[in-house]
Amino acid sequence: MKRAAEIEIALKPRPHGMQLQRWLYEEIRAAILTGRLAPGARLPASRDLAKQCKASRGTVLAVFAQLGAEGYLNGAVGRGSFVTSELPDQRPGAAIATQADLSNKVDLVTGLNRQNITLSARGRLLSRTPFKIEGLAHPARAFRPSQPDVSEFPFATWARIAARQSRLAPRSLLASGDACGFRPLRAAIAEHLRAARGIVCSADNVLIASSVQQVLDLSARLLLDPGDEVWMEDPGYLGARMVLEATGANVVGVPVDSGGMKVAAGRASAPNARLAYVTAGRQSPLGYPLALDRRLALLAWADEAGATVIEDDYDSEYRFEGSPLAAMKSLDDSGRVIYAGTFSKLLFPSLRLAYAVLPGQLVEPFSAAMSLTCRYATLAPQTVLHEFIAEGHFGRHVRRMRVIYGERAQALRSAADMHLAGLLHLPTITTGLDAPAFLAEASDDARVTRLAAEAGVEVRPLSFYAGKNTCPSGLVLGFAAVSSEEIEAGARTLAQVLEPLCNI
Amino acid sequence: MKRAAEIEIALKPRPHGMQLQRWLYEEIRAAILTGRLAPGARLPASRDLAKQCKASRGTVLAVFAQLGAEGYLNGAVGRGSFVTSELPDQRPGAAIATQADLSNKVDLVTGLNRQNITLSARGRLLSRTPFKIEGLAHPARAFRPSQPDVSEFPFATWARIAARQSRLAPRSLLASGDACGFRPLRAAIAEHLRAARGIVCSADNVLIASSVQQVLDLSARLLLDPGDEVWMEDPGYLGARMVLEATGANVVGVPVDSGGMKVAAGRASAPNARLAYVTAGRQSPLGYPLALDRRLALLAWADEAGATVIEDDYDSEYRFEGSPLAAMKSLDDSGRVIYAGTFSKLLFPSLRLAYAVLPGQLVEPFSAAMSLTCRYATLAPQTVLHEFIAEGHFGRHVRRMRVIYGERAQALRSAADMHLAGLLHLPTITTGLDAPAFLAEASDDARVTRLAAEAGVEVRPLSFYAGKNTCPSGLVLGFAAVSSEEIEAGARTLAQVLEPLCNI
Repeated sequence: MKRAAEIEIALKPRPHGMQLQRWLYEEIRAAILTGRLAPGARLPASRDLAKQCKASRGTVLAVFAQLGAEGYLNGAVGRGSFVTSELPDQRPGAAIATQADLSNKVDLVTGLNRQNITLSARGRLLSRTPFKIEGLAHPARAFRPSQPDVSEFPFATWARIAARQSRLAPRSLLASGDACGFRPLRAAIAEHLRAARGIVCSADNVLIASSVQQVLDLSARLLLDPGDEVWMEDPGYLGARMVLEATGANVVGVPVDSGGMKVAAGRASAPNARLAYVTAGRQSPLGYPLALDRRLALLAWADEAGATVIEDDYDSEYRFEGSPLAAMKSLDDSGRVIYAGTFSKLLFPSLRLAYAVLPGQLVEPFSAAMSLTCRYATLAPQTVLHEFIAEGHFGRHVRRMRVIYGERAQALRSAADMHLAGLLHLPTITTGLDAPAFLAEASDDARVTRLAAEAGVEVRPLSFYAGKNTCPSGLVLGFAAVSSEEIEAGARTLAQVLEPLCNI
Repeated sequence: MKRAAEIEIALKPRPHGMQLQRWLYEEIRAAILTGRLAPGARLPASRDLAKQCKASRGTVLAVFAQLGAEGYLNGAVGRGSFVTSELPDQRPGAAIATQADLSNKVDLVTGLNRQNITLSARGRLLSRTPFKIEGLAHPARAFRPSQPDVSEFPFATWARIAARQSRLAPRSLLASGDACGFRPLRAAIAEHLRAARGIVCSADNVLIASSVQQVLDLSARLLLDPGDEVWMEDPGYLGARMVLEATGANVVGVPVDSGGMKVAAGRASAPNARLAYVTAGRQSPLGYPLALDRRLALLAWADEAGATVIEDDYDSEYRFEGSPLAAMKSLDDSGRVIYAGTFSKLLFPSLRLAYAVLPGQLVEPFSAAMSLTCRYATLAPQTVLHEFIAEGHFGRHVRRMRVIYGERAQALRSAADMHLAGLLHLPTITTGLDAPAFLAEASDDARVTRLAAEAGVEVRPLSFYAGKNTCPSGLVLGFAAVSSEEIEAGARTLAQVLEPLCNI
């Protein structure tokens, strides 16, 4: 038997717990990649290698076959196996990663060479971090803003529907979906919006997305080029401002008063803007609905300017006196308004289902863009939600939570009157999951927020919402996610935080 | 009782099925918006209006309250209600939409004025439609490409896990999520990729997205500015090319042969590209794995150029002889490769869960961009999938489908040999859910596709994947979604379609 052309392979000991076949594969692969086995070199016969590493010959042949398929070896039965000769000179150096290395070298995972990857200019805008979401501590504490009380969600009912659908839903629902979303859900949403919010629309106008944030992102990309002007309430919702800025648009802050966005000011400063973002139902963060005359003026401007308006209706379903106010979209006779709504606050946030009601002209562009950038929103939760609405659970849950949140708004009102008088001014609460409360002019609300957090109370400073305009100093207080007792206790703690600051 | 200042309101008849209160609300609102009720006009006393429209006085008062809250009316108890006087002159004209109009006027939904909304230049790129997804006809027919067989998915097991989690999962999972995804799932994916694909990574490197398309979109936006060059296989995956082009990047088609992307050609034509997109495991559509020397050359180029490589590993888990090949990412010592994988083809498409394995440097930018543009992927399917993997169902299902798809690949091989010899050349099938088959040089594969569709057979032409380079004429034949019998029958039908074309 000729042995001359063969070489010995130096094999590192097999790490504890590693499969023999994988270890042998990795050792030979590393030897080739690092050059210890040179291009063209002949490998030991499978029989000899099997003996050397106490493996079966089948194991060695399987390793040779895998390395052959991956291009490391070539050979023919009876002639032996050779290291492939076409490997380039330039290849990863001595530090080739193997499973065995992983535990020791964390650097492998992050890139050994540590050369910087350069983000694009757009990428740097897109990845600024102040808006980054992290898992929230659970349960919620007073006064976490923007949060519904998930403990009140009828999850048993939801799970029952999901289980039934798992048994009965046709297999076709596993195979594919529509970029616009599950059509029966879109029809149910259109029906709800027609009845509850005065919006004239059909299923064709409804696009299901995973979040309002995704709707905003698609809207900004479809409607704005870099440098285009866009109106944005100031103070206003940070998530919207950041996603608009990420497109390279020129975000023009429009001041806000108790009638909402000052449309005349927007018209004066950026008459040719391409887009306006407005929280017409309940201005975020100041809480006022956009006045009727301003709604009409905004629509008239959009018609004149050929602009589009995004109405972000994030929590105005929760109105505590009477029915929810009609949406601005209900006045949109000329197809200028993209209405965005979410189930995050009506049901539970991790559901990740939101929707847009689109002007007819925008349906095709949005569905094409959704298809290109995401394909379609997860289907199963859409079918469950459709059934949840059709069986009346949705309406019942919203009505029930409206009562509960109304009581908690009242609890916050009473607690503020009792403990926070002279420290925080809390305007009347009519709608929503949180409310602004105003500090004395000079206070640093970010500092108050930090001190409150140290005392165990969550608040969000109004300055978090500020653009370039001066913003009143204050705190956004969420009252929906916690009980009336916790609201009372939170108000007492907050008073202890504020008192020393105000006595100075 | 003074009546002089009051006016009569002309009320259109109430449409069948419309609530009295909603009808009255809409009639008064429309009368104000159209100017039939002028600013400052006094409304009839609630008692009289109630009599006029046969409603209770409570109903009328509720309508007045709602219109008051929405800014249409103002007034005080005892003094009467007045149309608000601050309405602007410019407001929607005579065609104000009401619920009653909806059935007659479809135009309302699409925008009465029909002024065009102008898309941005970026928006026009983003909304080109050839890639738009629509619900697919079910069940699949031979030879639908890119499709797994959802009828083989163990949905009962999946549903059982989902139901158990519905009962047991903590409420905290309803409230919020992490932009990178559910951490236990990320850890399970990292473990699978380490063992099965040789990728050295940890949970920290894994980002959960709703689709590979979303991963591509985020990558393109984070790494490319308009005009930047990017390598793309030609022929190659249309969805990738379109999403890269949508960023305004200059997509450079790199030719492909039986060793996959010709890296030297890419280097010659665009040495300073910022990004390269490659289907290293099984080139889409031609089916060859990227040769080892080219993998190493591609990584060496990326290191030199400071470029990033996207490895789209869409179906190479399904290798029918031996284990799946190691991913190119397993050679990525310097953190240059974004590895993208999906569960659409391993489990079922409407699950909408995919992932990226990111170089350490890109984890923060991706999670921030994900958070800004989408927040996070739906949580519940992630928790179910984690359990499905942890309990071993995932591995079992993939192994089982590997056998089934291998049999179907063999069925296609046999059927092609039997019926399509001389008409279509089918190379050896080793991996995946579909395979290319080549027509005689001059054939118009798009025409063949149309003729096949008329005969009841689904195929996709290779020209669908073509960029600017010449592309071989051929058809992509999916063999995974249908039974061996349907494959046999489909091949016979396809032969009947091709014979007359080839005899000319």
